[in-house]
Amino acid sequence: MKTPIFITFEGGEGTGKTTQLGLLQKRLEKLGREVTLTREPGGTPLGVEIRRHLVANSNDPPVPTAELFLYAADRAQHVEGVIKPALAAGHVVLCDRYADATVAYQGFGRGLDRSLINELNKIATGGLWPKRTLLIELDHSEGVRRSLAREAALDEAESRFEEEEAAFHKRVAEGYRALMKENRDRFRLIDGDGTVEEVEVRVWEALKDLFGEAS
Amino acid sequence: MKTPIFITFEGGEGTGKTTQLGLLQKRLEKLGREVTLTREPGGTPLGVEIRRHLVANSNDPPVPTAELFLYAADRAQHVEGVIKPALAAGHVVLCDRYADATVAYQGFGRGLDRSLINELNKIATGGLWPKRTLLIELDHSEGVRRSLAREAALDEAESRFEEEEAAFHKRVAEGYRALMKENRDRFRLIDGDGTVEEVEVRVWEALKDLFGEAS
Repeated sequence: MKTPIFITFEGGEGTGKTTQLGLLQKRLEKLGREVTLTREPGGTPLGVEIRRHLVANSNDPPVPTAELFLYAADRAQHVEGVIKPALAAGHVVLCDRYADATVAYQGFGRGLDRSLINELNKIATGGLWPKRTLLIELDHSEGVRRSLAREAALDEAESRFEEEEAAFHKRVAEGYRALMKENRDRFRLIDGDGTVEEVEVRVWEALKDLFGEAS
Repeated sequence: MKTPIFITFEGGEGTGKTTQLGLLQKRLEKLGREVTLTREPGGTPLGVEIRRHLVANSNDPPVPTAELFLYAADRAQHVEGVIKPALAAGHVVLCDRYADATVAYQGFGRGLDRSLINELNKIATGGLWPKRTLLIELDHSEGVRRSLAREAALDEAESRFEEEEAAFHKRVAEGYRALMKENRDRFRLIDGDGTVEEVEVRVWEALKDLFGEAS
């Protein structure tokens, strides 16, 4: 049996995570590895329902504590039902967002109780953390420049919403940076700007030592 | 505004809780009180979905930790979205099962981690506990006698299932007794044997001091 390896990808929307995960899966399969590609939330039937509920009820959202419990339920199910069995079978497990995302999005982004999030993460993961976490970042100045250019065309309410959105994503990005500083052993920062091929090279540079290639 | 009062009913299946809660609601409304009658799980749209999920997936149930998180999500939503607003409006809130039920059923009955359950209950309730909890008990010897009489007619597998069921409900009953000993200030034991009217009298005897009648 080959050595099981657990890898997570983190980052905001539109950073190309999903594309890169698919390419990485193909590369690893060519190297003869069995790969389980999964995601949170949505990696289990329970997670799909939770995801659907959180999206469907965006006008009547769960209270913050209930939302954190739902993410934790999904995570516990995912760890026990998907990730641990795949690792036990010697797979490489690639996961599109994991416990770090709850800290970044709900904790830093939305300002929910971070000590509660950490406590729930600890229980839900059962102490299972990735061997490596790739944080894909886009140059924010580009996004902000485009956003400002659009604002001339927006009315005041739209403009305020855009500003709030931008502020939220800035807090999330700061949260990810803070997590990276606290977990330098497993985090690697990936520049997400450039072509898909360029980013793929960076992704592999940040992982290949785990697969017996000199880094 | 009248004094808000939070009352919970606990006990096994078939103890007449639901019937008694309906009768109590009518009595209190005749006394001029506004009553919110609710239940766990299922007291919120989120709770209904969780209840449905737990029932629908009984062949592929959530892992224990995920199940505890789902109950906790329902409870947090219920406390913040239903119970607290009703109490803030001066209502009497009658709840069919609450945090004690998770300790009795999942903790004592199924043997899940009781310290985790206590921790999640603490977070999900936000420290909101009922003023009084009525534990309705049926005489178990009667149930056991009937069960033994049936067993002659059952094959071995059915018989074993019945025994496991009986053992489970015995552990739940013991769990409720243990909770009552730890919380004598709010718990009252109600004998559930007898006619609906007889039990209703006992229920009111155990509650009337809260509504200004001498006990």
